[in-house]
Amino acid sequence: MSKTTGTRLDQQIAFLNEADKLKNTIRATELCDNSRYENSAEHSWHLTLYAMVLADQAGPEVDITRVIKMLILHDLVEIDAGDNPIFGDLDHAAIEKQEQAAADRIFGLLPDDLRDSFRRIWDEFEAAQTPSAQFAKSLDRFQPPMQNLQSGGGSWIDFDVTEQQIHDRVGSKIAIGAPNLWAYAKARIATFFADRSTG
Amino acid sequence: MSKTTGTRLDQQIAFLNEADKLKNTIRATELCDNSRYENSAEHSWHLTLYAMVLADQAGPEVDITRVIKMLILHDLVEIDAGDNPIFGDLDHAAIEKQEQAAADRIFGLLPDDLRDSFRRIWDEFEAAQTPSAQFAKSLDRFQPPMQNLQSGGGSWIDFDVTEQQIHDRVGSKIAIGAPNLWAYAKARIATFFADRSTG
Repeated sequence: MSKTTGTRLDQQIAFLNEADKLKNTIRATELCDNSRYENSAEHSWHLTLYAMVLADQAGPEVDITRVIKMLILHDLVEIDAGDNPIFGDLDHAAIEKQEQAAADRIFGLLPDDLRDSFRRIWDEFEAAQTPSAQFAKSLDRFQPPMQNLQSGGGSWIDFDVTEQQIHDRVGSKIAIGAPNLWAYAKARIATFFADRSTG
Repeated sequence: MSKTTGTRLDQQIAFLNEADKLKNTIRATELCDNSRYENSAEHSWHLTLYAMVLADQAGPEVDITRVIKMLILHDLVEIDAGDNPIFGDLDHAAIEKQEQAAADRIFGLLPDDLRDSFRRIWDEFEAAQTPSAQFAKSLDRFQPPMQNLQSGGGSWIDFDVTEQQIHDRVGSKIAIGAPNLWAYAKARIATFFADRSTG
């Protein structure tokens, strides 16, 4: 599927229809009530709410509106590339190649001005160099542990994850953009694993 | 469930955990691929993307950032009040009462400053008096027909809806904030119903 030859509005709607597929991309994280796995569209919504609620955890150089736009767009590439669970065995080079191709195709459905502005937002998020991107990335890493603590372990159980692996793969990333949130999560994760070992 | 007595951050996380329930609120609209009904969390995400993509359809007084925040928050009351399909038999006074109580409870989980600022955003959306709220409402009415056109009719079939009912209940609302989008939808809806009557 490449850009439609219709009007500007036809192209905008074709992109929005294609985006609907993100509702069928399944993540490794469960809902808080443990009823099913989360999809990437509802996850993206939840993260935009995290950004609104936890804006006071952002540094002074963070632009929360930009963060929200990054979080709206950040997982669209998963329509083609799928979700890659952080505790899975990942080939980072292959994933990056897939996601770049997905970004070319999916944002390429849009009129050129929107394609370019959305791609800049997504590229900024992926590069994780600006304060806004670092905060957005921290929220993206912080929400799954919050869900796992509610659902009884979720992906930590499924992937047989140790507390140290969470520190290494997740905590180190949360701490870059939102150190207080990592301190908060770390304490609760410690309690979770202590309860499990004695439970 | 009322506000936790913990720290500010405990209250923020309690609200975000409660919000997770919106992923289990099922709407009358189907996904474009007809595979299942949409939930209100993923619908909210899709609408924020509609706002980003269709910002050029907004009048000059519309604040798109405010629109996006309204769309992130607009359906949270459905955690308690459920979704009320626009083509169903609706008791508008009863629904409003339920939704106001839901807003009191759900936004009440937040620290007071966030409770008040989120409530103002939701109240503005509900009142539909400002240009931003009117545009947000138009998008909320425009997305379901776009989905129905993809999924083969969706809620129009389930509720045995006529073209005139769509004009009255949906079109009139879309036209207030986004007249071009209603013109676009109206033409495609006409084709859909013409094809059905001859098909």
